[in-house]
Amino acid sequence: MAKIKIGVIGAGSIAWYATLIRDLSLMKGLWGSTVTLMDINRERLDLIYGFAKRYISEVRSDLKIEKTLDLREAVKDADFIINTAMAGGHQYYEKMRAISEKHGYYRGINSVEWNMVSDYHTIWGYYQFKLMMDVARTIEELSPNAWLILLANPVFEGTTLLSRETKVKVIGLCHGHLGYQEMAKVLGLDLDYVNVESIGFNHVIWMTKFLYKEEDAYPLLDKWINEEAEKYWRRWRRKQKNPFDVQMSPAAIDMYKRYGLFPIGDTVRGGTWKYHWNLKTKKKWFGPTGGPDSEIGWKIYLENHEKWLNRAIEALHDDKTPLTELLPPKMSQESVVPIINSIANDEEGLYQVNVLNNGVINGIPDNVAVEIPAKVDGKGVHRIQVSSLPKSILKYVLYPRMMRMEWALEAFLEGGRDLLFDWLIVDPRTKSTKQVENVINDLLSLPENEEMAKHFK
Amino acid sequence: MAKIKIGVIGAGSIAWYATLIRDLSLMKGLWGSTVTLMDINRERLDLIYGFAKRYISEVRSDLKIEKTLDLREAVKDADFIINTAMAGGHQYYEKMRAISEKHGYYRGINSVEWNMVSDYHTIWGYYQFKLMMDVARTIEELSPNAWLILLANPVFEGTTLLSRETKVKVIGLCHGHLGYQEMAKVLGLDLDYVNVESIGFNHVIWMTKFLYKEEDAYPLLDKWINEEAEKYWRRWRRKQKNPFDVQMSPAAIDMYKRYGLFPIGDTVRGGTWKYHWNLKTKKKWFGPTGGPDSEIGWKIYLENHEKWLNRAIEALHDDKTPLTELLPPKMSQESVVPIINSIANDEEGLYQVNVLNNGVINGIPDNVAVEIPAKVDGKGVHRIQVSSLPKSILKYVLYPRMMRMEWALEAFLEGGRDLLFDWLIVDPRTKSTKQVENVINDLLSLPENEEMAKHFK
Repeated sequence: MAKIKIGVIGAGSIAWYATLIRDLSLMKGLWGSTVTLMDINRERLDLIYGFAKRYISEVRSDLKIEKTLDLREAVKDADFIINTAMAGGHQYYEKMRAISEKHGYYRGINSVEWNMVSDYHTIWGYYQFKLMMDVARTIEELSPNAWLILLANPVFEGTTLLSRETKVKVIGLCHGHLGYQEMAKVLGLDLDYVNVESIGFNHVIWMTKFLYKEEDAYPLLDKWINEEAEKYWRRWRRKQKNPFDVQMSPAAIDMYKRYGLFPIGDTVRGGTWKYHWNLKTKKKWFGPTGGPDSEIGWKIYLENHEKWLNRAIEALHDDKTPLTELLPPKMSQESVVPIINSIANDEEGLYQVNVLNNGVINGIPDNVAVEIPAKVDGKGVHRIQVSSLPKSILKYVLYPRMMRMEWALEAFLEGGRDLLFDWLIVDPRTKSTKQVENVINDLLSLPENEEMAKHFK
Repeated sequence: MAKIKIGVIGAGSIAWYATLIRDLSLMKGLWGSTVTLMDINRERLDLIYGFAKRYISEVRSDLKIEKTLDLREAVKDADFIINTAMAGGHQYYEKMRAISEKHGYYRGINSVEWNMVSDYHTIWGYYQFKLMMDVARTIEELSPNAWLILLANPVFEGTTLLSRETKVKVIGLCHGHLGYQEMAKVLGLDLDYVNVESIGFNHVIWMTKFLYKEEDAYPLLDKWINEEAEKYWRRWRRKQKNPFDVQMSPAAIDMYKRYGLFPIGDTVRGGTWKYHWNLKTKKKWFGPTGGPDSEIGWKIYLENHEKWLNRAIEALHDDKTPLTELLPPKMSQESVVPIINSIANDEEGLYQVNVLNNGVINGIPDNVAVEIPAKVDGKGVHRIQVSSLPKSILKYVLYPRMMRMEWALEAFLEGGRDLLFDWLIVDPRTKSTKQVENVINDLLSLPENEEMAKHFK
């Protein structure tokens, strides 16, 4: 069993962090290893460190936990670096959104066709991309053989950027592809017999294969749409509590009808403004919460975020109740820890990863990150053959999304005000040149954006 | 000297036709050849036939002129087919525009970023693409070795479509690249010493090389912009009569500053809505006529069109004045006749052509038609090495334009209402889903569009 060092950068989401700690402590193949937690915020760092220490001791895991405020210390001698950091945090994103909305850009200038996810930095991701590059450059310098596991969004832009611009071995990960399980459950299928392939870009993946007991199961989905969907939606419209409960929403079915394959996970949150004009439109397509990316749904998400944080703090103060009551010792479905184990111990596994295309998906350039299933073992990531995507998805979904990715990276790499302007001038929310100028001015005047304003001068 | 048969399809623009007849009759290398004029409108056909017969006799050219209403007759045994046909003519386009404008789509739903040219069918080009395909399929059947010279717009979409879908040898031609001469004249340069390379897509070409007396002449352009442009524009704003006089407009200079290379010819008419929101915006960027693609400029263009027709009819009725007074016997700068001569007589020449990229311009897929200089001789078109285009032009100009081309061809090849919907849902003029539905309904309800409505059902 390999004894390795894993550096974990950023302690943003305590819920996600707790899951990581749990999975790490339960993966016996990694016992004897060291996990170095790093964050720039001492309070948060102490919190997750305390949580980790206690959880590990409760489950009697043989993991060594360290903490540091210094990126270099976390990276030095590491075999794996997990980047989960979100520059500025949610607060920053929400400020940017509020300024955008003042100028007529509902949900922010960053939300555009096929990327409506409410905290997925792209065009205004200057600090986020800079942070990603800082981590990668530090790896290049101190641990050039380490793997960088990118969990921080935007995974699509980030994986492409880091793979193009640095020599680091990057794998982007996202659990969105598990959305197929929600679908299978609604269809009443036994997950043990479901076999799915979903490919595309991160947050824009499409179910290219759907087998149940080794037979094509798309007809089962079609049958559900024809016979059950209306009834399901009536109930769902009355009961939807979780804004993320949209895998079987009218939006998903509409996209399936239009583009020919079923959209999986966060893909459903995307689409054009057809699904997103305003809250009323969002409610029609995503249920009474308007889905996760409406003002209602996102508020619920952010509140849950806070709740989890408070619950973790309370749990840490409560010496009597074991943490395993909050978080039972059972592996999650997150793939980050199993992937590390597959590489570290050369145990082959099949995972959904984001890596440069290099010819896997027809019609996508080699140097663009795709989300695909791939084999992972001690030698790394091995791309396997996948299905072809229909022209309708390539031309109307992936090309527009890819163009926005290129624009976002160009904005980060080149700078200059024109690049922000050109992002906005083709936006359906834009009604005049003045509106574009005003929103750019106001965004760049934010005190936090002083450095960014220089970049986009 | 080769004695060949040239079929000419469509007699839309009499001005252009007269030029073709003149050039053909003056090209001695083609004497002894037969030119078969074809149109579905007998009146127009008789007019151009009468014009051609008399012009040829006046200049004592040894060309045989035939006329026919039958496409197959024009194509049979032909060595070259020149397609200039515009399905439905301007009247049809103007009707489509008027309906679009009723629903808030200024200048028509067909006018979009980087394609604002007022009669360049793309998304609603169903009949135009069908006509292009009819001609090409007839060539495949009756004269599979013939060259198809595509002069009818959209040259970008058409050349790509025909090259992909048929086996015919296609060359797309457009005289827009000659715009560099206007620039050189304004800069006070002697054309004999000017050497220019402009590449990209048809109507979206950028000056990748600009030499004067073998030295880089971009500094001369920069000097003019810094020292002369303001004065030039003041005069131009007072005097602009010709709406096509935009090569040195503020729009051209602004695009040059933004994208890094000077835009040539019809390229200047493009750009995003920044230059085109409304008449006021167009006047700011394109002068008091608003450029050729404003309601003012386009009216002037259509009126000139009519004037030329009437002048030609009068000239034909006037037996006493020779046609050569209207149209002196001197070769124009149109390349269609010289290219035919180069191929027919194996006389190598360098021409601006539209052909599939096949690796010439970096970053553009092989199966997309590019506009480039190429060598042409008896063996056909030989691509030569060209410069690279800067990322700013590739990413912000050519990729969006290419995406629209793909969407337009998909709409023609696949049909279905969704494809029109998806065209409009990302349009900055679109404010609601209902607006999209309404404009599609109204356009497809036009009596002329009965067949098209079935295609997009």
